[in-house]
Amino acid sequence: MAIVRRNLLRGGAVVAAAIGTGRNAFATPDSDPDSPPWLHEQGALALSPPYGNPSPFEKGVVRRTRVPSPFPTVASSLTPLQDMHGIITPGGLHYERHHAGVPAIDPDRHRLLVHGLVERPLVFTMDDLLRFPSVSRICFLECSGNTPLWKGVPDSWTVQSTHGLLSCSEWTGVRVADILDQTGLQPGARWALAEGADAAAMTRSIPIETMLTEAIIAYAQNGERLRPEQGYPVRLLLPGFEGNTSIKWLRRLKIGTDPWQTREETSRYTDLLPGGKARQFAFVMEAKSVITAPSGGQSLKTAGFYEIRGLAWSGRGRIVRVEVSTDGGQSWHAAALQEPVLSKCLTRFRLPWRWDGEPGLLLSRATDETGSVQPTREALVAGRGTNSRYHYNAIHGWRLGRDGSLFSAA
Amino acid sequence: MAIVRRNLLRGGAVVAAAIGTGRNAFATPDSDPDSPPWLHEQGALALSPPYGNPSPFEKGVVRRTRVPSPFPTVASSLTPLQDMHGIITPGGLHYERHHAGVPAIDPDRHRLLVHGLVERPLVFTMDDLLRFPSVSRICFLECSGNTPLWKGVPDSWTVQSTHGLLSCSEWTGVRVADILDQTGLQPGARWALAEGADAAAMTRSIPIETMLTEAIIAYAQNGERLRPEQGYPVRLLLPGFEGNTSIKWLRRLKIGTDPWQTREETSRYTDLLPGGKARQFAFVMEAKSVITAPSGGQSLKTAGFYEIRGLAWSGRGRIVRVEVSTDGGQSWHAAALQEPVLSKCLTRFRLPWRWDGEPGLLLSRATDETGSVQPTREALVAGRGTNSRYHYNAIHGWRLGRDGSLFSAA
Repeated sequence: MAIVRRNLLRGGAVVAAAIGTGRNAFATPDSDPDSPPWLHEQGALALSPPYGNPSPFEKGVVRRTRVPSPFPTVASSLTPLQDMHGIITPGGLHYERHHAGVPAIDPDRHRLLVHGLVERPLVFTMDDLLRFPSVSRICFLECSGNTPLWKGVPDSWTVQSTHGLLSCSEWTGVRVADILDQTGLQPGARWALAEGADAAAMTRSIPIETMLTEAIIAYAQNGERLRPEQGYPVRLLLPGFEGNTSIKWLRRLKIGTDPWQTREETSRYTDLLPGGKARQFAFVMEAKSVITAPSGGQSLKTAGFYEIRGLAWSGRGRIVRVEVSTDGGQSWHAAALQEPVLSKCLTRFRLPWRWDGEPGLLLSRATDETGSVQPTREALVAGRGTNSRYHYNAIHGWRLGRDGSLFSAA
Repeated sequence: MAIVRRNLLRGGAVVAAAIGTGRNAFATPDSDPDSPPWLHEQGALALSPPYGNPSPFEKGVVRRTRVPSPFPTVASSLTPLQDMHGIITPGGLHYERHHAGVPAIDPDRHRLLVHGLVERPLVFTMDDLLRFPSVSRICFLECSGNTPLWKGVPDSWTVQSTHGLLSCSEWTGVRVADILDQTGLQPGARWALAEGADAAAMTRSIPIETMLTEAIIAYAQNGERLRPEQGYPVRLLLPGFEGNTSIKWLRRLKIGTDPWQTREETSRYTDLLPGGKARQFAFVMEAKSVITAPSGGQSLKTAGFYEIRGLAWSGRGRIVRVEVSTDGGQSWHAAALQEPVLSKCLTRFRLPWRWDGEPGLLLSRATDETGSVQPTREALVAGRGTNSRYHYNAIHGWRLGRDGSLFSAA
């Protein structure tokens, strides 16, 4: 399997046989008696709807659930990463994870209460929040339960199933620091409790340092106000932290001295280690990557040129390197990273490649600016065991058959 | 009218009277007998639809037409900039401009023909194009007819009407250079004709240097495949050039020695100058900016703190400076630019400001990395007269009344 250097690709003839095979004939649609109608007829509509939609030909590109939920309002849906390009996730395809369904909140009735160890408890309306100085940030959100491969996985899973609890948006809102400047902080303020206005009253404890630095109270996503399933009218946004801490439908911040040990911090979002101890407050999503094309469930029709494409990200900062292997890790090749490469943001990587028709194992390995390298499954399991449900960030593989089929090899 | 420095804002008490006025009472929704139902009831739906939508409370945030079109398939719709945050425009709100409606193209039947002064004429299917090396770019698109204020404008126009033929997306596709590497170029190849598959067969002539450097054949926008109204399944994308040259529904590239003088290059997209001559092929959208909040049609309810927010862009490269005036240009203040500041991309600018309740005139002025400064209306008209319909990039103003109302003052 040859890795194709860009200068080889640009040589022309080298790849001509691989791309557009059999299509070298000169033929215009005009000379074709079966020429399509859209060349000759005015478009049916003057304008698209006031709020537009994707082409009907893309109706298969949707969020999907992995397995049906036993409780109708406790569920998740996954972003179709195999069909995505670039780094931005459109609002309609952002992954979802709900603990009590999606509340239908009237923004005029919604309030954010900030209290506890503050000097001046305050209640904010949405109008109040929108008048504050604003800030925007393009960053990823990943569910801590993304890639639940601790105990293996059916090899039929696609990248939507293995990694689809992952999306990336441009978020806009108010710095939590600016809100806390208004309330003031009392001595001993070291943690904040964030609570959602869903019926689950989803609550997480967040270190005050995080709240005073990168935390945003976000009201907009990709230019428009939040989608309901992303916390409309307002959510907490903690870049790089596990998704569940970015509390949706945010209604309350309470400042205190210690974490609250909420239900989500004891029964759920902890990592059970081999010795029986549980790792708590492991907030940061570590360096990780995945090849999105070619990937599980896809099929290579012929040997020849392909671009290996994927996504890399780290909750600790910028991605500085992604390496790709097509031979199961015997050799590694540096992928190109699409600029801009932003901190705590998805980074698109790409490697030109010529498939020789032989079986292979496609892997990717991310390194972030702190030097953190995505571990092998063996190294990850050696440290954490296989009891956990969260924070799986090992190198992932797609097994490529001689017939061009691809299966998950985690 | 005081410009509020950030350190003043962060002082707390200074702005506390301006923000959240009258809301200092400590009150939780729980203690409120009229507490909203979403705190106590499970969300109605487990998950949002497979492809999600904005909140019903945002139903007024839509594309609008400026005036009804006399021809039903020749029309444009405008992005609601007054309601937008950050720089990304969601697909559903991207502005539209159609010459023959929106064709409903089956991607499996669509072909791209590249011929003329090439060594090997080729026809590409969508599958062919998707196998090529890909590239992504976040950049703006602006219709050359945006901001049609050469002869003045009704003062009731909002920023959606004055500047809404402007949007910004992350585009992904194939470099035209890579396509032309496959076809080769014959001596004398200096221009390319790009043709759309709409019934208008929209055609523009593009310099070959542009095609070999930044031009992209784009098939994806904000992560998903193009929207039909943006050229599904494939469009030309020329960052920084007037929008109409980024030919939608691209079906043909013909290479030649000279521009083709198509209908769009003689009857339409030229600038009629004072002496009667017409400026042709003025492709680049020059440095420009506009304040989106507060803006025309909005109303300031009370004196006090506001953040002046807007967008700046240039078809020549990065924005390096935006200045804002609240007194009609007597004094100017440097606005903060939201990172990342990208070439030929929208840049969000912001300035904290305290309104003293007096009348004012709000202006913004952009400067790009080539040193090009957004001109005053007087300077622009002195050079170009008022016959043109295109390329108006003068400084724009919003007149603020004592009652808090805002009107276009161009």
